[in-house]
Amino acid sequence: MLASVAYAPGDLRVEQVPDPVVVEPTDAVVRVVLTCVCGSDLWGWRGIAPFSPGRRTGHEFLGVVEQVGPEVRDLRPGQLVVAPFAWSDGTCHYCRRGLQTSCVNGGVWGEGTSDGGQAEAVRVPCADGTLVPLPEGTPVERLRGVLALSDVFPTGHHAAKMAGVAKDATVAVVGDGAVGLCGVLASARLGASRIIAMSRHEDRAAVAKRFGATDVVAERGDEAIARVREITDGIGVDCVLECVGTDQAMATALGIATDGGQVGAVGVPYEVSTIDVQQMFSRNLGLRVGVAPARAYIEELLPDVLSGRFDPVPVFDHAYPLAEVPRAYRDMSARTTLKALVEVSTP
Amino acid sequence: MLASVAYAPGDLRVEQVPDPVVVEPTDAVVRVVLTCVCGSDLWGWRGIAPFSPGRRTGHEFLGVVEQVGPEVRDLRPGQLVVAPFAWSDGTCHYCRRGLQTSCVNGGVWGEGTSDGGQAEAVRVPCADGTLVPLPEGTPVERLRGVLALSDVFPTGHHAAKMAGVAKDATVAVVGDGAVGLCGVLASARLGASRIIAMSRHEDRAAVAKRFGATDVVAERGDEAIARVREITDGIGVDCVLECVGTDQAMATALGIATDGGQVGAVGVPYEVSTIDVQQMFSRNLGLRVGVAPARAYIEELLPDVLSGRFDPVPVFDHAYPLAEVPRAYRDMSARTTLKALVEVSTP
Repeated sequence: MLASVAYAPGDLRVEQVPDPVVVEPTDAVVRVVLTCVCGSDLWGWRGIAPFSPGRRTGHEFLGVVEQVGPEVRDLRPGQLVVAPFAWSDGTCHYCRRGLQTSCVNGGVWGEGTSDGGQAEAVRVPCADGTLVPLPEGTPVERLRGVLALSDVFPTGHHAAKMAGVAKDATVAVVGDGAVGLCGVLASARLGASRIIAMSRHEDRAAVAKRFGATDVVAERGDEAIARVREITDGIGVDCVLECVGTDQAMATALGIATDGGQVGAVGVPYEVSTIDVQQMFSRNLGLRVGVAPARAYIEELLPDVLSGRFDPVPVFDHAYPLAEVPRAYRDMSARTTLKALVEVSTP
Repeated sequence: MLASVAYAPGDLRVEQVPDPVVVEPTDAVVRVVLTCVCGSDLWGWRGIAPFSPGRRTGHEFLGVVEQVGPEVRDLRPGQLVVAPFAWSDGTCHYCRRGLQTSCVNGGVWGEGTSDGGQAEAVRVPCADGTLVPLPEGTPVERLRGVLALSDVFPTGHHAAKMAGVAKDATVAVVGDGAVGLCGVLASARLGASRIIAMSRHEDRAAVAKRFGATDVVAERGDEAIARVREITDGIGVDCVLECVGTDQAMATALGIATDGGQVGAVGVPYEVSTIDVQQMFSRNLGLRVGVAPARAYIEELLPDVLSGRFDPVPVFDHAYPLAEVPRAYRDMSARTTLKALVEVSTP
């Protein structure tokens, strides 16, 4: 089969690799229908994240179950399934608490020798704990929205949950990438009364507004803090979603939170070196940082995606065939593509 | 009157100063009955915190109202009152939300030209918003416990609340000073099922056990993390109270939290320079840091203190007259006194 393999920063190749097969009795093999490229894929591609030559790429996919191991009970060949970006056994202490990213038997696609999602097929460990079957008769035109449940929408949702977004909360979202935009969508879904999107790109701000943003702030750094304070009567916002992962984004997030407010940070913090703890102390700020347990949220978000009531599809602004995954990375890195959809096969 | 005045780090003098009088119509003057010394008083005394020569010291006191300004409505001369360590107007946006430490008209005793609590009397701004009258007939033998409501017990309680302590939570408390011990007491009061006190001092560990600690861990640093993990089946605890304010204490606090856990930090973070944000991300940790809005908690904690059901008095292990405040600081700095009670006058 074809799969995307990373050789070096900037050197990604879609090439022939052995077809995946069931190895463990709890495995399944999934033929990929749709996959996509994540902002976090670019960290390794740019050489910022630790990099293992030869690793597979991609951690978001939706597809059709082709084979199941003898101990797989809840899945059968032919089912359409969506995979969260990490596999998990569904039974350990952390999985039972809904924190599948800490699963004692878990991992993230592409780590070590595991398969990646940017491929024609994937061997899925702990298939029962990991994969979520879609309802019979799910319309093909909703599959792109369902693919967003692999990572980007649950991650925006996780930022909102960690920031304490609830009915009538005032919210600001730092970062106008696909995750930040999904954070806007998730905040609207959770009933926020005001959602300030921080964006200086007109096309992304337009998606933010479509997703429920009530205000757009284009400033950055101290000017962004001043502007948000200005439009909130000097008070700041209850909840801040930090969806970038840099020192500047974190400083902005803390600076625009109201005293007693809460920041939920999902930007992979490769470029966060400092936190202003003195400010947190004097203003009673909370910070929760975390990789989203996407598996915990898929069932909750799926009905709203299937109905189109909260539809993340607008984050996918360009589609590519599998062979053009390297171009998709280049386009996302150049910011000419917000989030690349990769069409692999038909369901 | 006599008041304690700080001249330089290590140079504290109890000397004659002008008697306080009502200046603003919302002021009261309180004759001090009991005051005490806080661990945070030592930061300035040791020269670690910013220091203003000539400032008054002490921010915890209980006393009798002597005079009230013409706009004070809820207090009358002769009432016994306890003061939280910060004054607040009780009416601003933040006070209405229970975050009186962010009051737009607030301040902390001893800041600027304000009076300090280690004195014979104190001018209290925003008296109605600040002072809490005690019930008629409060027995004299309960006043030491009520004095603890100025700061140390609400601060321990705030750490527990920020760490999310609730019924059946597993808890660890980093720091065996008076605040940490009150954090143990507050966690017991909130229904924690297990409370691990981190202490290497036998006398303090004994108070921790009396306050409800189920385990005592004497190790520090990485050994403390290993020990807590060992006694929690490798999982760590749900809630960690960080009651020190150093890099090591913060690292220990994050290290012993279970994945998905929460740290509440009340140690004044003069010596916190770094936070391991990558660990927080991979393990989904939360951190809330804050100065306790003591005023918000006094009414809640007062009945349990008056009944003796949750009695913080054991944190006061030595009593001093006002004239010996400098010795009290020296003894606390040398750790021969845990928390110094200062007896100023009779109620």
